Amino acid sequence: MEKEIAELFTKLRYKKPLVHQITNFVTMNDCANVTLAIGASPVMASSPCEAGEMVMLSEALVINIGTLQPESFDGMMAAGKTANSKGIPVVFDPVGAGATAYRTDCAMKIMKEITPAIVRGNASEMNWLIGGRSITKGVDAVHVALSNADIARTVAATYNCIAVVSGNEDAVSNGKHTYLIQNGHPMLTRVTGTGCMSSALIGCFAALSMNHLHSAVAGISLMGIAGELAAASLSDEEGTGTFRVRLVDFISHMSAEMWLEGVRIIEA
Amino acid sequence: MEKEIAELFTKLRYKKPLVHQITNFVTMNDCANVTLAIGASPVMASSPCEAGEMVMLSEALVINIGTLQPESFDGMMAAGKTANSKGIPVVFDPVGAGATAYRTDCAMKIMKEITPAIVRGNASEMNWLIGGRSITKGVDAVHVALSNADIARTVAATYNCIAVVSGNEDAVSNGKHTYLIQNGHPMLTRVTGTGCMSSALIGCFAALSMNHLHSAVAGISLMGIAGELAAASLSDEEGTGTFRVRLVDFISHMSAEMWLEGVRIIEA
Amino acid sequence: MEKEIAELFTKLRYKKPLVHQITNFVTMNDCANVTLAIGASPVMASSPCEAGEMVMLSEALVINIGTLQPESFDGMMAAGKTANSKGIPVVFDPVGAGATAYRTDCAMKIMKEITPAIVRGNASEMNWLIGGRSITKGVDAVHVALSNADIARTVAATYNCIAVVSGNEDAVSNGKHTYLIQNGHPMLTRVTGTGCMSSALIGCFAALSMNHLHSAVAGISLMGIAGELAAASLSDEEGTGTFRVRLVDFISHMSAEMWLEGVRIIEA
Repeated sequence: MEKEIAELFTKLRYKKPLVHQITNFVTMNDCANVTLAIGASPVMASSPCEAGEMVMLSEALVINIGTLQPESFDGMMAAGKTANSKGIPVVFDPVGAGATAYRTDCAMKIMKEITPAIVRGNASEMNWLIGGRSITKGVDAVHVALSNADIARTVAATYNCIAVVSGNEDAVSNGKHTYLIQNGHPMLTRVTGTGCMSSALIGCFAALSMNHLHSAVAGISLMGIAGELAAASLSDEEGTGTFRVRLVDFISHMSAEMWLEGVRIIEA
Repeated sequence: MEKEIAELFTKLRYKKPLVHQITNFVTMNDCANVTLAIGASPVMASSPCEAGEMVMLSEALVINIGTLQPESFDGMMAAGKTANSKGIPVVFDPVGAGATAYRTDCAMKIMKEITPAIVRGNASEMNWLIGGRSITKGVDAVHVALSNADIARTVAATYNCIAVVSGNEDAVSNGKHTYLIQNGHPMLTRVTGTGCMSSALIGCFAALSMNHLHSAVAGISLMGIAGELAAASLSDEEGTGTFRVRLVDFISHMSAEMWLEGVRIIEA
Repeated sequence: MEKEIAELFTKLRYKKPLVHQITNFVTMNDCANVTLAIGASPVMASSPCEAGEMVMLSEALVINIGTLQPESFDGMMAAGKTANSKGIPVVFDPVGAGATAYRTDCAMKIMKEITPAIVRGNASEMNWLIGGRSITKGVDAVHVALSNADIARTVAATYNCIAVVSGNEDAVSNGKHTYLIQNGHPMLTRVTGTGCMSSALIGCFAALSMNHLHSAVAGISLMGIAGELAAASLSDEEGTGTFRVRLVDFISHMSAEMWLEGVRIIEA
């Protein structure tokens, strides 16, 4: 699997796919910058006046409900349905699902009325999608009884999609096979938007490949590896500000070779 | 006072409070990143569809009108009233009050219909809240006849809150005692959002402590000290871009000891 | 011409004009930071509730349709018409014109109902304004048959404005004289918002000068020179994250002398 995934890194820089992202206001600049850093091109048109038309120019769609509003939700539904009808893969990030009724309802509507190819969230968000009633503390993960692998497997089997559960070990599942990605660094939790950026990166790879398990593994492991390299590069005085800058630096330099050297995957 | 405030820095990293922030689109990413850097957790749900519910999960609420819109204003009012009824402290940043009628009206409505525990602004913004008709030039401070200490004292006494007036010397008052914080650096005015980030940091401390004078001093002095350290760390070639990154670096490293070493407070 | 433009850099740091910007959610923080870095002051009030009033306090208005919405469009129209009536120069950035019908329609309405002093876009966006039907791929430029100089000349002549077409060589025209700015670096295309930031910088100079050709050349060449300096400063490990930080650093240090030393202009 690793060799095929590594090839996606080369292909991405060559193809420069356009990735439409209807995402939150907090981290959208970071999402655009990592999209460019890995070699794709972002467009972030969220208004229902144009979202459905914009997605037709795109090779993938990323939906993220971090700062959900009725207007952007309408844009997400319009773009998502168009993407489904045109065979454009949809990546969904259910940020904060479970925290409020509005957010949970919208997340469930997206899961039911759109067919996401890949869903990525933390354990508590993803657990909500399968009826688990873990408490979501704002938009950050809290302790959940099930393992990441179990949640990923159940989400994937329930919705017939690829499920990615982020955490200490990231789990990626297609319902039958589940992989654990053992990359990452605790500093990734001290910068806003590393989850959102992972979803954006997964969208970049989904724009390239019909194998969405590969796309998901590529995107989530890329963030983990970049986090490790960024943390290792810090001097004693440098902190989370510099870490965030280096994260983008290493993503912008990532090659098939760097990825193969850094990635650690096992089957669960 | 200093010793008790210093303990808040340790407590914050241990407790990791959730701080709900309904803030402006320009600086919200920076506000989220300094919130994480000091050890708290941000959530930024502004829609009236969920703001009132989200604030109930939070230990403090920060309201900032930098890019005010009718929809986010409704979210602010819903969240603010819920916070008041649940005893969750509200920090208010009246960005640009006085610049337009809409902004001034909304700021006054928030002061009257919500009871903020702490209000932070520059001299011209804060002066408007007490009927002073200084000219607000966009969102930046202009010269005001009263001293920062006088404005802080009057706002605090008028609204029975803690008032923080940012400037060359920051003034913090509870209406009876007024303190001047002599930290800071001119470069803080050359980066967008340092005021907003100060308010966000004050919200992080307000989430911990019943003593809102302490919370206000902790947050505002933290930004000043981080600004001094960031400016001192710059090489000749480095400018405001690197300064902004280092600001977050030093906030992410700030400890009770670093703060005690750096802070300069006198009673006015 | 160079000597007169160089003086604008000194004048800007002395006058600190207020520049109202109704821009997109993705890059607005960057636009605010480069505005401050070059010595002006940004305000970003987009709501129609106050945009028309805010622009009256400002010395220039920048309109950017990167994440267009009906509400912010109303704010743009209100602010733009007020600016026109008060003689406040308007800079327009037609981001993604041609990509969707909504975006193209709004861009054309702005061109017809507001009189921009300066319009800046990439070749495909600018080509749409003159009836060219190039394909706009999201918000990034694609190959267009006409040269940048030809497009700039035609836009300028058609709309009686200054036109700036960004690209490998930037073209600036008043319809009679057309200049090519030979500054820049390929890394500028790997960071989001460098076009938006160019428009913001042009707005800062437009706030100072009645000679909008000079303002346009100053702003667009500044971004190119800063890009060259930022790229030259990178170590092997540093990538697009550090590049973005250095871009702001060099803008914050830019002086009349540095600009004169770096700029390369020829008449087309």
